[in-house]
Amino acid sequence: LVSEVFNEGVLSGLPGDSAVGHVRYSTTGATLPVNAQPILVRCRGSSIALCHNGNLVNAPELRRRLEQTGSIFQTGLDTEVIAHLVARSPEPSFEDAVVGALTQVRGGYALLFLAADKVIGVRDPNGIRPLSIGRLADGGREPGWVLASESCAFDSVGAEMVRDVEPGEMVILDRNGLRSRRVLPEGQRALCVFEYIYFARPDSDMEGLNVHSVRKNLGRLLARHYPVDADVVIGVPDSSISAATGYAEEAGIPYEIGLVKNRYVGRTFIQPAQRIRDEGVKLKLNPLRKIVSGNRVVLVDDSIVRGTTSRHIVKLLRGAGAKEVHLRISSPPYRYPCYFGIDTSTTSELVAASRSEQEVERMVGADSLRYLSLSALLEGVGGGRCGPARHCTACFTGEYPVRVDGAGGKHALEVPHFPGGAEEAGGT
Amino acid sequence: LVSEVFNEGVLSGLPGDSAVGHVRYSTTGATLPVNAQPILVRCRGSSIALCHNGNLVNAPELRRRLEQTGSIFQTGLDTEVIAHLVARSPEPSFEDAVVGALTQVRGGYALLFLAADKVIGVRDPNGIRPLSIGRLADGGREPGWVLASESCAFDSVGAEMVRDVEPGEMVILDRNGLRSRRVLPEGQRALCVFEYIYFARPDSDMEGLNVHSVRKNLGRLLARHYPVDADVVIGVPDSSISAATGYAEEAGIPYEIGLVKNRYVGRTFIQPAQRIRDEGVKLKLNPLRKIVSGNRVVLVDDSIVRGTTSRHIVKLLRGAGAKEVHLRISSPPYRYPCYFGIDTSTTSELVAASRSEQEVERMVGADSLRYLSLSALLEGVGGGRCGPARHCTACFTGEYPVRVDGAGGKHALEVPHFPGGAEEAGGT
Amino acid sequence: LVSEVFNEGVLSGLPGDSAVGHVRYSTTGATLPVNAQPILVRCRGSSIALCHNGNLVNAPELRRRLEQTGSIFQTGLDTEVIAHLVARSPEPSFEDAVVGALTQVRGGYALLFLAADKVIGVRDPNGIRPLSIGRLADGGREPGWVLASESCAFDSVGAEMVRDVEPGEMVILDRNGLRSRRVLPEGQRALCVFEYIYFARPDSDMEGLNVHSVRKNLGRLLARHYPVDADVVIGVPDSSISAATGYAEEAGIPYEIGLVKNRYVGRTFIQPAQRIRDEGVKLKLNPLRKIVSGNRVVLVDDSIVRGTTSRHIVKLLRGAGAKEVHLRISSPPYRYPCYFGIDTSTTSELVAASRSEQEVERMVGADSLRYLSLSALLEGVGGGRCGPARHCTACFTGEYPVRVDGAGGKHALEVPHFPGGAEEAGGT
Amino acid sequence: LVSEVFNEGVLSGLPGDSAVGHVRYSTTGATLPVNAQPILVRCRGSSIALCHNGNLVNAPELRRRLEQTGSIFQTGLDTEVIAHLVARSPEPSFEDAVVGALTQVRGGYALLFLAADKVIGVRDPNGIRPLSIGRLADGGREPGWVLASESCAFDSVGAEMVRDVEPGEMVILDRNGLRSRRVLPEGQRALCVFEYIYFARPDSDMEGLNVHSVRKNLGRLLARHYPVDADVVIGVPDSSISAATGYAEEAGIPYEIGLVKNRYVGRTFIQPAQRIRDEGVKLKLNPLRKIVSGNRVVLVDDSIVRGTTSRHIVKLLRGAGAKEVHLRISSPPYRYPCYFGIDTSTTSELVAASRSEQEVERMVGADSLRYLSLSALLEGVGGGRCGPARHCTACFTGEYPVRVDGAGGKHALEVPHFPGGAEEAGGT
Repeated sequence: LVSEVFNEGVLSGLPGDSAVGHVRYSTTGATLPVNAQPILVRCRGSSIALCHNGNLVNAPELRRRLEQTGSIFQTGLDTEVIAHLVARSPEPSFEDAVVGALTQVRGGYALLFLAADKVIGVRDPNGIRPLSIGRLADGGREPGWVLASESCAFDSVGAEMVRDVEPGEMVILDRNGLRSRRVLPEGQRALCVFEYIYFARPDSDMEGLNVHSVRKNLGRLLARHYPVDADVVIGVPDSSISAATGYAEEAGIPYEIGLVKNRYVGRTFIQPAQRIRDEGVKLKLNPLRKIVSGNRVVLVDDSIVRGTTSRHIVKLLRGAGAKEVHLRISSPPYRYPCYFGIDTSTTSELVAASRSEQEVERMVGADSLRYLSLSALLEGVGGGRCGPARHCTACFTGEYPVRVDGAGGKHALEVPHFPGGAEEAGGT
Repeated sequence: LVSEVFNEGVLSGLPGDSAVGHVRYSTTGATLPVNAQPILVRCRGSSIALCHNGNLVNAPELRRRLEQTGSIFQTGLDTEVIAHLVARSPEPSFEDAVVGALTQVRGGYALLFLAADKVIGVRDPNGIRPLSIGRLADGGREPGWVLASESCAFDSVGAEMVRDVEPGEMVILDRNGLRSRRVLPEGQRALCVFEYIYFARPDSDMEGLNVHSVRKNLGRLLARHYPVDADVVIGVPDSSISAATGYAEEAGIPYEIGLVKNRYVGRTFIQPAQRIRDEGVKLKLNPLRKIVSGNRVVLVDDSIVRGTTSRHIVKLLRGAGAKEVHLRISSPPYRYPCYFGIDTSTTSELVAASRSEQEVERMVGADSLRYLSLSALLEGVGGGRCGPARHCTACFTGEYPVRVDGAGGKHALEVPHFPGGAEEAGGT
Repeated sequence: LVSEVFNEGVLSGLPGDSAVGHVRYSTTGATLPVNAQPILVRCRGSSIALCHNGNLVNAPELRRRLEQTGSIFQTGLDTEVIAHLVARSPEPSFEDAVVGALTQVRGGYALLFLAADKVIGVRDPNGIRPLSIGRLADGGREPGWVLASESCAFDSVGAEMVRDVEPGEMVILDRNGLRSRRVLPEGQRALCVFEYIYFARPDSDMEGLNVHSVRKNLGRLLARHYPVDADVVIGVPDSSISAATGYAEEAGIPYEIGLVKNRYVGRTFIQPAQRIRDEGVKLKLNPLRKIVSGNRVVLVDDSIVRGTTSRHIVKLLRGAGAKEVHLRISSPPYRYPCYFGIDTSTTSELVAASRSEQEVERMVGADSLRYLSLSALLEGVGGGRCGPARHCTACFTGEYPVRVDGAGGKHALEVPHFPGGAEEAGGT
Repeated sequence: LVSEVFNEGVLSGLPGDSAVGHVRYSTTGATLPVNAQPILVRCRGSSIALCHNGNLVNAPELRRRLEQTGSIFQTGLDTEVIAHLVARSPEPSFEDAVVGALTQVRGGYALLFLAADKVIGVRDPNGIRPLSIGRLADGGREPGWVLASESCAFDSVGAEMVRDVEPGEMVILDRNGLRSRRVLPEGQRALCVFEYIYFARPDSDMEGLNVHSVRKNLGRLLARHYPVDADVVIGVPDSSISAATGYAEEAGIPYEIGLVKNRYVGRTFIQPAQRIRDEGVKLKLNPLRKIVSGNRVVLVDDSIVRGTTSRHIVKLLRGAGAKEVHLRISSPPYRYPCYFGIDTSTTSELVAASRSEQEVERMVGADSLRYLSLSALLEGVGGGRCGPARHCTACFTGEYPVRVDGAGGKHALEVPHFPGGAEEAGGT
């Protein structure tokens, strides 16, 4: 935990007046200290720290080219490709070297660079990964500036949200305050819609929308489109509680705490094998028998990836005496791999990739299963009228905002990534 | 975390077919490995492991006597007194030696002893601390037996609740299954009422009651007795969510998620100084501005101990735009120190010990503050008609079920204890 | 290493003006932190630290009795028996309690006790284990006092040797300086002769004799009694170098460095199995081919315990081209187990217990093998005329200065001990 | 210690059939794991491990050039420059890439590269640093090959010395056995003469000479040129014992063990400050009073660098009662910094750089001080007639075998190095 590494003693001993940090989950194979971020490199005569939220589609190809011409890589991270491109740039200024490097990469990213005299933040041209600007006001003094993937981080340090970094915008924080440059041609806007559905914390705001409110709204839409006669609505903690309360209110069915989460059991996704993951669910979630027993239950979840978790929860509820279990998913079927920062491995692991709604219903053992439709989702995330232009919905549609043909080889590298729970998602 | 210490590799390497474990929080001064439980002693020619949930009132006096006559203590735990009494017992059988030791101690306890060929569980004569029996059914084989402070532990391992251990009962698990002996004269029944209010996990059952349901019921009673005109009801996560939903339902005001908890910030109570604790609250809880802003808020909390946390949350909500904050506490004013396992330090730290409801209201800065009455509490925990006879309510009334005159000196010993959150309470 | 544990930072942070320390090797099975010394116990209302060099013959019997009457042991050390006897003593003063405890134990020991206001040192009635007094003179101030197993420790801290503690003497260091009490009836004097032969550092003095000089003298006697026609004399480093130079001088044969020791290879005796020990010798010692090749070699060693090391060294020398290898041992055949602090395990492991000189010669593969006679040894350690009365020579004669009938069971306890090299021997 | 890192368990778990290792002391500032060797890099599509004994004179200049053109360095080691040069080489074969890299570096080095299918060893064109070839014969099987800085390593693993690697020679070990290529133009032969004087272990052979024998010979020459009327000859352990026995034999004065070394005190040169180093000497060496007291002592040491150690030892001997102390140094005055692998920091720290023999004599407090002359040294290392052509004696003469003008900046990098004791010197 960050709070264990950076305890009071360590924090009070840190010199300097600027810093970057990163919390990024890696998968089993690559859980190595060397792959932790920020990465720290000496290049161009000084030291640079670099954090990267997201994924570069053409990293394998760029790395191969760099290695062939003499670069030595120290990590398995796609992020290191950026460091080498910066190191090699002929541009005399560091800012321009970063710009030069970024014109060569393709993908989704929010990047932070810490140099001796400045912090630079950049967001990819499509704005796939989020990045926000906050301000620390402290009496009469000059305000401080903060950049974070999610605005909830500002609340923790007493800063206030100013605005999102724009797609393709570079923000420079130095002695003179904050400066902005548009450095990359703006592409089609495509903020990852899964940030709303699952990744972001409910107390964060993005594009002016509060994540909890969006989720509650998705729950309401789900109830409106797929009502069911039931006694109680429960949500899968923690990420689906918002949607579940929305469903309950709209449906007029009591919302109840039907599943209790054991906070002290290791997080399932860091467990190595599927077998252990399944055991993990059992240890982690406990049904409240008093609430469930003898009742017809609406179970709201935000998404189904592999299907194994859903199957287990349905089984847990039946074991606790549920008469019926109606599963309602507050997003469309997850059918296509993501290349921009979510680890959904291969298509073959996605239960909905090759199965109809009915087949998944049977597979998870629910009395009924309904997914939110794409159009309802788009309506719920505050637009709808503008269509797929505003968000990346590639995991549902297969329409990627960036060319992904080079990404096939990405698993050849040990690219760490950060699948997570709503509050567990890594962020810069 | 237990899951970090006992990972798959460690667990699979453990020999034997019986085990005891303990999770017990200690305060700052005594966070020493030597004070961790189970304690392991060689006595009477073999090795004994011993876990203890609770507190012995006369431990300092017994320890002084034992030291004077030649016993060497290795820890600061009151639990070690029991080990020495067992070691000195002239009784030839281990069971009888335990009984002999327990006739000399006074206090609240659930105890587990692991010997070479058996596990022994005992609950104090008043049943102040809880202890339950579960059964592991595994096909046609002999069932396994499990003892735990809370029944939610049974769900995690696939066992089912059988019954509570009775006050003064000794339960012996060995090759022949489970055997019961009444070994201590049963006193006035006095299960700690704070288990229902705050300590226990909502998915546990005690005395046939589900903890979540009791809490929800307390919330309903609170709404019935102390209604208020408001727009939204929110609870302090995690322990007050159940009561908040009860309040909301009874009052007909929407329940909302208004405070988001950062799961990754260190738990406040292990922080050394009050200053840090206060900062801790800020880092840990984040108000959902969208929910709170412009609204009249009913804030439900389970109890007020020092008052500082409440004051901060009220301030957080006002900072997030709450028009009014009405604090409703689902238990009576906490006025007297506990000597049976909850660390409430000295009377001087208890904000309600010397202040009226109005004074506390002013101190925490709420627009209104109401505590649940003692009679409503007793009604809510499933009795009421039987009065204080059924539960220990000493922290509210000062009437202790066990003589506590020897307990004044308890702080002379470094007695670790386990203040905690609802799901963080230590347990055997 | 002590210098790694007590580095500059740690040392400068230690409060107080008195201290005790101990370096004691334990065997494989019991290399546990809990068995490290000093042991620290709370007894009689305060804390006591206790160091013990040596071995108690009747510890198992005493421990059994103490456990049966309620004492709880935390370690496998015989030393802990003393702590319990002190804890149980009815004597009001700590000094008298120590005396009372020591009247019940039998064996060889140098003991140091650190209490809040004094340091107490005691030596066993026969003086089997050594203990010396040193004085730290520091200008005009009061002198400081130091107790150590070997006088070389005084040189390290700038103290000077005053005298040996007498057998059965108790020395008390407190605010008033040094005080002496005769507390145990003096027995037959019996300082372990192996301290001279192998244990002690060459720069230590005992009974007014310098260890290096004694060893050199033993080498001379060996040459006088068992001369041989040879080209070069070499010693097994480090403990036999002194004897080898004595042999060379007396015989008029050049002394040479023929075996080089690798200082960075793990010490052989801490290796678990015999197989590894043998490999260890090979890694640790390297013959100097230039010195050995084509020559008739006198190899001087201080003793032969199991014989395996000798066999390997002879083999190493032959492999390096030695024409002849004549082994000369500067002590008599080691035939009987030691119960007073040297781990010689069981009689069956002592190669000379059941073999004649000729058989051992054949077993180790030397061209000739000669042991120093007992009378020559006694002459060499500065007396001879007084016979066995002055030193313990039980390992050669089987005549123990203390009744050892209770010691048979000592291996039932995990009694750590300290076999070692000349400079590696543990000491208080 | 290597034996602690690579214990039995670790060793038995290592896969593969080839390996490289390195023991290299670093100075305080740079004692970082990242600067430990071997360094491991991914370059040219596969992984390479690289060990380097020695120092590159033009590393700072090469590094600056590489960084300016986009290389990212991970360590402060000059060795990493070689890795980058190899990574950038256009040569298709790995062997040729290594050759291409080495044509660009200047300095003294023995290098080992471990690639997937081979081990490559190279020695610098002047042969400044040593490197030897050994063979592991194992019955009828194919022999194994070993490369090591010193031949004593062969004895440890049961291999036998074959020959030295020639200056400028590359040796390739692969499935087909050993292959040799001359890859660099052979320069003037210049093996570091300090290897004979101090660095190497006495049981190693170089250029067909045994190190112990050379040292003993230097001691004889010292006695012949600078005799003195004395009672006893003692050497500073461990590196000067050989020379001291030579002096004693030639002079006909008894050689004695007059200084005992505490093996368990931290090695002086890793201590941070001069003050601690001086204390270190006191703790580490203990004079044998019996030997020294009342005697005229010849103290033989191999060299004087800063002079502080010598001053302390002279003082120790006088404190132990020496009537006279005559210091004899088995090498000429150390006057010039070394740029090829010995850390002698700056000229200002070399006591002889600006002082005459008489001034140093006074500074160290000896009754007399004599250094071996350069011509006697050259005679002693087996040549003399061939003059300075055969060995690097730059530390005595200032005549460097390689241009060192670029080396001025070497301390700008954190270049770890390995000052050491005779048996403590790092080596490949």
